[in-house]
Amino acid sequence: FVANPVVSKSPTVATRLHDRINNKIELDSPKVATMDKMAAGDKKVYCRCWLSGTFPLCDASHVAHNKETGDNVGPLIVSVDKAEE
Amino acid sequence: FVANPVVSKSPTVATRLHDRINNKIELDSPKVATMDKMAAGDKKVYCRCWLSGTFPLCDASHVAHNKETGDNVGPLIVSVDKAEE
Repeated sequence: FVANPVVSKSPTVATRLHDRINNKIELDSPKVATMDKMAAGDKKVYCRCWLSGTFPLCDASHVAHNKETGDNVGPLIVSVDKAEE
Repeated sequence: FVANPVVSKSPTVATRLHDRINNKIELDSPKVATMDKMAAGDKKVYCRCWLSGTFPLCDASHVAHNKETGDNVGPLIVSVDKAEE
């Protein structure tokens, strides 16, 4: 569990914090790029709101976020065709 | 091309604007969920910063965003194994 860093309330940091998209996932990483493998017949729902408890997969955290902020973000749903039998 | 809506500078709207993640992609849509199909042997790089000019695919817009805001967002790279020959 990565504890949220204590962020001082000075305006510059607070404003920058607001401009960040990610305030939760792997905050100690310089860049959170995710590589994932899928196989024939797979279907996965990926998070794009950076709030999911099951990141990189979606757990519908975007619903509460959109409601609170008036945002309109939603997940990426990727499906792979079944292999021809 | 969807023109960025003129946003009044009243603090509440400005603060809410900051809390949004998406200020660019399909702003008139209630929720931007993307469905995409992949096939055996495919590899795709998907945007998670909501700034790409080739959304839902990544165009490296996250690099400038991270530099400007101190954020650490990056793309989702999905690959599908080649079908067994």
